[in-house]
Amino acid sequence: MEIKVMENVLKANDAWARENRAFLEEHGIRMFNVIGSPGAGKTAFLEKTIGLVGDRLKIGIIEGDLATLKDAERIQKTGVPVYQINTGTACHLNANLINTALKGICGEGRFDLVFVENIGNLVCPSGFDIGEHAKIAVLSVAEGDDKVEKYPPLFAKAGALVVSKLDLLEYTNFSMEAATGAFRKVNRDAPIFALDSLSGRGFDAWTEFLLSGQESS
Amino acid sequence: MEIKVMENVLKANDAWARENRAFLEEHGIRMFNVIGSPGAGKTAFLEKTIGLVGDRLKIGIIEGDLATLKDAERIQKTGVPVYQINTGTACHLNANLINTALKGICGEGRFDLVFVENIGNLVCPSGFDIGEHAKIAVLSVAEGDDKVEKYPPLFAKAGALVVSKLDLLEYTNFSMEAATGAFRKVNRDAPIFALDSLSGRGFDAWTEFLLSGQESS
Repeated sequence: MEIKVMENVLKANDAWARENRAFLEEHGIRMFNVIGSPGAGKTAFLEKTIGLVGDRLKIGIIEGDLATLKDAERIQKTGVPVYQINTGTACHLNANLINTALKGICGEGRFDLVFVENIGNLVCPSGFDIGEHAKIAVLSVAEGDDKVEKYPPLFAKAGALVVSKLDLLEYTNFSMEAATGAFRKVNRDAPIFALDSLSGRGFDAWTEFLLSGQESS
Repeated sequence: MEIKVMENVLKANDAWARENRAFLEEHGIRMFNVIGSPGAGKTAFLEKTIGLVGDRLKIGIIEGDLATLKDAERIQKTGVPVYQINTGTACHLNANLINTALKGICGEGRFDLVFVENIGNLVCPSGFDIGEHAKIAVLSVAEGDDKVEKYPPLFAKAGALVVSKLDLLEYTNFSMEAATGAFRKVNRDAPIFALDSLSGRGFDAWTEFLLSGQESS
């Protein structure tokens, strides 16, 4: 019975995900689902991205958290529209919540790109399609280079891997080679971006990826 | 229907948790449920703890991960018995899995203390009672001082807070005052241990807590 219900939950979610995809296509928006552990640096990554390409791409942000408006308040300071979802105790965002948020944010104008910052969690968010064009997996060097192997589902599905907090690399035993090697075992094609959201180091390749994707879409 | 099934899942879990509590009491074992984000430093914290009190307390470890035996292999090197649970895609350990693991590990002798290292996740594990005496919340300074407010359920229920990776404090903008202040708003009594599992700094208070708890139990 538990399995049956989970199937129904996923079926309902997938129907909303299809709705979202149709909505995004109709409005010419690309949507990325940003997923990583609590404290992986997802918000800082988005802040820096907005700072670097916000003049060329019209960006909107959907923030997911159990509680508080903290991340939305940070994003608001960058000047881009942001919609906060508080899930209470739920460990991931679902496509239905995203549908409401997308319609809410699109009341504020036209967008090229919407980033969804999912709940900080390496497990649950990757199981729910929200209609995104790609999942962006964010892994900070402070978490350790064994995380790809220990939490494979997200990394296998990711459309890009962001290795964040490069500024802490020299103070940890994180091996870039071990982490990216493990990533390549579960994901043959997705590009890897190693970067530091404080200084902006490593963002050139990432912003080029965003801008070139926009031209071709 | 989804809610009804979730109630049934929790009801079944609670029955197993009661079983586990009875088993622990019968065998004179204290059990701690160690919960934190991926890469919070839970395994290193257990390795150091074993190194410091393993001669005075008989310790067993139950490791939870989606995949790999990596953590169990690390613990095995310390010489204490370890039981690895791989959950595949499940985001938390439940009391039924712990029951099997407890019986498995107790085949290897008598124990004073069993630590369960739960799946790296700040959300789901705190919702499932496994029959533990206390949940130990582990938060690394690399994750940021806003995490207590953003993920309140675990911190409200914790029997102790461990602030880990103190060696990285000077390279981050983590404010100990902000983090512990936020913790005190949701948790009035649980002790707070700030420590560094590499050097052992800050472990005195923690090991004293463990040893004094053992005497009084």
